[in-house]
Amino acid sequence: MSSAEQRPRTKRRGRRPAGQDTRAALLEAAREVFSESGYEGATVRTIAARAGVDAAMVNHWFGGKEALFAQAVLKLPFDPAELVTALLEGDIDKLGERIVRRFVTVWDATSGGVFPALIRSLAAHDQAATGLRDFLVKEILGRVVERIEADHPQLRANLCASQIIGLGMVRYVAMFPPLATADVETVVTAIGPTLQRYLTGGIGIDGE
Amino acid sequence: MSSAEQRPRTKRRGRRPAGQDTRAALLEAAREVFSESGYEGATVRTIAARAGVDAAMVNHWFGGKEALFAQAVLKLPFDPAELVTALLEGDIDKLGERIVRRFVTVWDATSGGVFPALIRSLAAHDQAATGLRDFLVKEILGRVVERIEADHPQLRANLCASQIIGLGMVRYVAMFPPLATADVETVVTAIGPTLQRYLTGGIGIDGE
Repeated sequence: MSSAEQRPRTKRRGRRPAGQDTRAALLEAAREVFSESGYEGATVRTIAARAGVDAAMVNHWFGGKEALFAQAVLKLPFDPAELVTALLEGDIDKLGERIVRRFVTVWDATSGGVFPALIRSLAAHDQAATGLRDFLVKEILGRVVERIEADHPQLRANLCASQIIGLGMVRYVAMFPPLATADVETVVTAIGPTLQRYLTGGIGIDGE
Repeated sequence: MSSAEQRPRTKRRGRRPAGQDTRAALLEAAREVFSESGYEGATVRTIAARAGVDAAMVNHWFGGKEALFAQAVLKLPFDPAELVTALLEGDIDKLGERIVRRFVTVWDATSGGVFPALIRSLAAHDQAATGLRDFLVKEILGRVVERIEADHPQLRANLCASQIIGLGMVRYVAMFPPLATADVETVVTAIGPTLQRYLTGGIGIDGE
């Protein structure tokens, strides 16, 4: 409900609408609290208190803690639960390709989005690592492996995260040619099968 | 020749041996110059001048620019050319596993070695990205793909780098469980085939 109710930004000077103040204060408080306490440690109540607003405002403006983290820290323009559902639609044999395509498409539209900044915060704050792990591994990849009922779900989610993070590093942070400039489908075709094996293939455990 | 001639460090106070002074000055100058100019832009002459010593000292103490970069910036305890030769010994179908095993074994022995620091310097200095690219992709993975005469060698080297860097991020920087603590052979068996496909398999170009 948040973005529909969010008023358009205008260039006029003066006091912003009260709702926008609340939303901005929540985003700022969320960045601080997530940075201090990590994703798991941060609570909606703590963030709302830091922003000086009622905890119900988090649900009103963002729909919940996950989406607030996404917008405040990772600045992802989507809800992770909806993303997972969308990724799982279609042939499971193409799941790896869909995940790579989604990440690269979103990142490409924003020059890597917040990923380079997130890498910087990884270096500066251990809590950013916790946030990245909880969000990327638990909320996205962890849900995917859970929904497809994979064995060794945590290891599989980790393996996927390693390739996604490495791709982000090479394409948007270190910018190695030619991978930094390869078109999306070249990346999808090259790296999709890696995620596919990590998700549904043999990874060498239990004699697979 | 460097390490054999290097005198052991002692705890006595006072002036260190002149040779050690030269070596230390070169390492410090190299870190500065590589950071400022990147691997390609840095020259042995510039580094020696910054250290106030003759350029011949670089060859005397380190054997050349590559090994100086390895010790000064990446602090790898090996010469990349020797590493590549060692990696290529044995069954080419196990090349991916050997590369993963080598990186993880070296990194595990040093808690990731300089990798976390390198990620920090990647964020702070664009030149660190150039150094990582030139060294990891050009000097190690680029040589590997050249020696096995792979098609699309640069893209293949990039793809390998993306998985190696991502593994380093997850295992040593962000430290996601269980990949951060999985034993070496679990990692090798899970990720080795990824590098193998990037090196010798179909990566979706030219109808492969």
